[in-house]
Amino acid sequence: MLRTHTCGELNMAHVGQIVNLAGWLQRSRDMGGLTFIDLRDRYGITQLVFNMEINSALCMEARKLGREFVLSVTGKVAERSNKNPKMATGDVEMLVDSFTVLNVSKTPPFTIEDNTDGGEELRMKYRYLDLRRGVNRKNLELRHKLGIETRNYLNELKFMEIETPYLIKSTPEGARDFVVPSRMNNGQFYALPQSPQTFKQLLMVAGYDRYFQIVRCFRDEDLRADRQPEFTQIDCEMAFVTQEDILQTFEGLARHLFRVVLNIETGEFPRMSYDQAMKLYGCDKPDLRFGMVFSELNDIVKGKDFKVFDDAELIVGINAAGCSEYSRKQLDELTDFVKRPQVGATGLVYLRYATDGTLKSSVDKFYSPEDLRAIATKCGALPGDLVLILAGRTDKTRSALCDLRLEMGNRLGLRKASEFKPLWVTDFPLFEWDEETRRFYAKHHPFTSPVPEDIPLLDTNPVAMRANAYDLVINGTEIGGGSIRIHNKDLQKKMFTVLGFSDEDSSNQFGFLMNAFEYGAPPHGGIAFGFDRWTTIFGGGESIRDYIAFPKNNSGRDVMIDSPSAIKEEQLKELNIRLTP
Amino acid sequence: MLRTHTCGELNMAHVGQIVNLAGWLQRSRDMGGLTFIDLRDRYGITQLVFNMEINSALCMEARKLGREFVLSVTGKVAERSNKNPKMATGDVEMLVDSFTVLNVSKTPPFTIEDNTDGGEELRMKYRYLDLRRGVNRKNLELRHKLGIETRNYLNELKFMEIETPYLIKSTPEGARDFVVPSRMNNGQFYALPQSPQTFKQLLMVAGYDRYFQIVRCFRDEDLRADRQPEFTQIDCEMAFVTQEDILQTFEGLARHLFRVVLNIETGEFPRMSYDQAMKLYGCDKPDLRFGMVFSELNDIVKGKDFKVFDDAELIVGINAAGCSEYSRKQLDELTDFVKRPQVGATGLVYLRYATDGTLKSSVDKFYSPEDLRAIATKCGALPGDLVLILAGRTDKTRSALCDLRLEMGNRLGLRKASEFKPLWVTDFPLFEWDEETRRFYAKHHPFTSPVPEDIPLLDTNPVAMRANAYDLVINGTEIGGGSIRIHNKDLQKKMFTVLGFSDEDSSNQFGFLMNAFEYGAPPHGGIAFGFDRWTTIFGGGESIRDYIAFPKNNSGRDVMIDSPSAIKEEQLKELNIRLTP
Repeated sequence: MLRTHTCGELNMAHVGQIVNLAGWLQRSRDMGGLTFIDLRDRYGITQLVFNMEINSALCMEARKLGREFVLSVTGKVAERSNKNPKMATGDVEMLVDSFTVLNVSKTPPFTIEDNTDGGEELRMKYRYLDLRRGVNRKNLELRHKLGIETRNYLNELKFMEIETPYLIKSTPEGARDFVVPSRMNNGQFYALPQSPQTFKQLLMVAGYDRYFQIVRCFRDEDLRADRQPEFTQIDCEMAFVTQEDILQTFEGLARHLFRVVLNIETGEFPRMSYDQAMKLYGCDKPDLRFGMVFSELNDIVKGKDFKVFDDAELIVGINAAGCSEYSRKQLDELTDFVKRPQVGATGLVYLRYATDGTLKSSVDKFYSPEDLRAIATKCGALPGDLVLILAGRTDKTRSALCDLRLEMGNRLGLRKASEFKPLWVTDFPLFEWDEETRRFYAKHHPFTSPVPEDIPLLDTNPVAMRANAYDLVINGTEIGGGSIRIHNKDLQKKMFTVLGFSDEDSSNQFGFLMNAFEYGAPPHGGIAFGFDRWTTIFGGGESIRDYIAFPKNNSGRDVMIDSPSAIKEEQLKELNIRLTP
Repeated sequence: MLRTHTCGELNMAHVGQIVNLAGWLQRSRDMGGLTFIDLRDRYGITQLVFNMEINSALCMEARKLGREFVLSVTGKVAERSNKNPKMATGDVEMLVDSFTVLNVSKTPPFTIEDNTDGGEELRMKYRYLDLRRGVNRKNLELRHKLGIETRNYLNELKFMEIETPYLIKSTPEGARDFVVPSRMNNGQFYALPQSPQTFKQLLMVAGYDRYFQIVRCFRDEDLRADRQPEFTQIDCEMAFVTQEDILQTFEGLARHLFRVVLNIETGEFPRMSYDQAMKLYGCDKPDLRFGMVFSELNDIVKGKDFKVFDDAELIVGINAAGCSEYSRKQLDELTDFVKRPQVGATGLVYLRYATDGTLKSSVDKFYSPEDLRAIATKCGALPGDLVLILAGRTDKTRSALCDLRLEMGNRLGLRKASEFKPLWVTDFPLFEWDEETRRFYAKHHPFTSPVPEDIPLLDTNPVAMRANAYDLVINGTEIGGGSIRIHNKDLQKKMFTVLGFSDEDSSNQFGFLMNAFEYGAPPHGGIAFGFDRWTTIFGGGESIRDYIAFPKNNSGRDVMIDSPSAIKEEQLKELNIRLTP
């Protein structure tokens, strides 16, 4: 090795030893007769000292070294006179005897510090420099640790990691596939997997009753901030289980990760049905770090000649504790917030419950003080609080109030990155009706089993059917979801029919799975976690990109390697494809 | 769970307990008043007993069950009168009280037994049934265990697993890329990685001095028996190391895997230079499970008027101990073997050293008994042995004799699947000259560092340069290879020039790497292991396909899911590509 120690390990026990370090020049300071260099590697920083009086030639050489030069240094470990308790190696420094420049560096285009002066685009172009920053290193260390701990936990439970293929078959249901032209099979294409769903089900049919895989998945979607064209899943499946077994098993995994990675004991995860979540929080992934649950006000506010409420399908409020003194400006900001097209409300009604006990609302002329008090009571408001009310069509109103609730949570500092509130959401609907295409879509995916007692509804009222499906939500982010699967060919076929697949389509795309169901498919179910998201939540981060070594930008480009890019005419020719002019 | 125990765990300690099992009906036997069913799951087989006298209705129902039906059974564990010491559960059986058919099965198209009656094509089409066979289950269990042990060993050594992208950039050097059209970037393509080579080097530049990843790689090559279009690598890289550090570190990994997976202490791995390996075994991946090293005979056999030898660049023999009594037929077979186009020799000369001490050869008329004795001595032959000699151009002759040596090893049973002989091969040549394209190719890849003292030869005699490269060979199979990399931009640029890259090409394809080298790239090197091959060797198997859950056939097809396949016109349109008519 070109070093005897790392830059993170020297301490008082090493004082007097001659050691060798290698790393990058983080910064250097000339202080009269002394030159100090901070030498950095993955493990930490060690202060190097060069002394003009002891070796002026060496010191002069050291003064020529620039930021990010790669050095190999030899010297004696000494106790510092000015100890730095903030650094792991802050008790000591190295009195350098000699050094070698292993490589020089141009001045980096941004500072290699946690708080860097580089914008995102520049940092992505020079991602290999960006990744030198401590914040990014910690993110990748966290990711590595989560991977190791997940694997060992599942291995202990006799789960087998089984690799499934990446070159599979295009199945246009769901998101768009990335496809790969086959040179050896003229005019045909592979697809990259959106998930190993069908393969893990086949593994259950094959008898591998506990499967997992940490696996890359691909979706050719228009990208949003928290989406990447390739992302990583912790993909799991079990046979001979009920939903309860799966929730227990993977709550076990999640609690293990909370314990060993974050040192947090979460206790048992609460559970909530989809209907409850929608009613109380307006979405299927409520952030439980704070309250502000929805209170439905139809009974109280209708029939008082306030047309907006009278015409509304739902009138629903939340109570923002301690906000009764919100200024006109603050209330206007909230109104503007809910009127943004992304939120989509038409207006906001508020009710101040002043500390002196008086109630004042933006709809005073329609409601008596008793009415207002009834609203306040229903919303659980106390003197000093502010009730915020939206009204309109149920689904849109819930969704808008959900956004407002989260906004208030942010404004009030109630969404702390260091606090964790996991939640199981269960009893999802099986289907969603899409007005535009006038057909049903599977809320989860077409392999999800209905709740058994709802199966008769398949012929009569599919939209009322509940799925044997569940999501794991942490702090308002869905980090995993799964279901008990269908393992009966006839039921699977019927599902495809309800979803608008012709017999030919379902047989072309999923015939192999339905055939497999005829040869002794066991009852089975599973779950898949978004590994990027899980890591991001655990790291207290905002964007999954910060937890991916080489992410792509919003156009799906890797700006560092400049990809995608044109390929040679010969390559196209071999693949028997042409570009459309 | 739909079971209290697995089919592999019941023993005398459970006798008297009421338990619940779930699994597949492996076979059933009606014996007068009793019906026996072997119930199978991933963990083993348990014998179920149904008794006509005790419950005739249940027994009659059981007699209707077919092979591969999925059952849930409840009953009492009892000691067997006829114990079966070959089965883990052979001391006990279950007296069944009740059962449920969880799913029925059509009669499988082949028997679910280690020795099945299904041909490969049929088994691949029904791979989910093939994978139920114990042999395949053991292969995937071995693979899982190797993965877990590899990760934990490297994690202990502070290696970080870092995921690199799958959607990267096409670099036509080396094998052919699979490409992925980008919908969002019109006319442009991603490529699937042939290996994460450049990314792991960038991670070294980024300071992550110990990286690994168990990662899928892709090569669009015409397939051979032991090649797959997608395969898995254990990919590793380290910074601040010498070649010796890498050999030590990964010999450590390999010895760990031998120890914990196969319970074998290998001792230190021998090392051999490329030149030695070629001279003594005729190839760069010698199988050291047996001797038969090459003996070069030019000094002895030339100048005796035997034109074939006089004209040959190399005359080289091996000694097959104990084969002096080979029949005419056997010798003809060997001659036919070496004349096969894949082997390519023009003939075979033999020398029998009879047990009575007499020597007899196929070229007796050219050589005196003293000559023959000298040949025998040089080859280390003793009475009872057979010397086999080939002659011709050095490279072709070595290659042919290498094949003959392996063939003799097979015939003599010297290549035992249960014996393991690892070997490091070092000092590979840096370049290969290709007559056809009249240019140099990198023997390893263009990022491989020359042995430092050979760098001056870059301008004068590239073909004489040695690489700082190494392979790990086990039993004649290369299971891994790597090198110390170039970390200097100028040297890297020069390498690309010698390899015939224009400045534009090298900058287009690898500009990001050469730029990175300007910002403090540390000395680094690494290795990548073929995970499929390693598993196959450890499993004592022949084909990597048997160790891959869902392999492709020689046309790159997955015959189970019937992929690749045609995609919809809409998909092509969105991607702005057309099929060439």
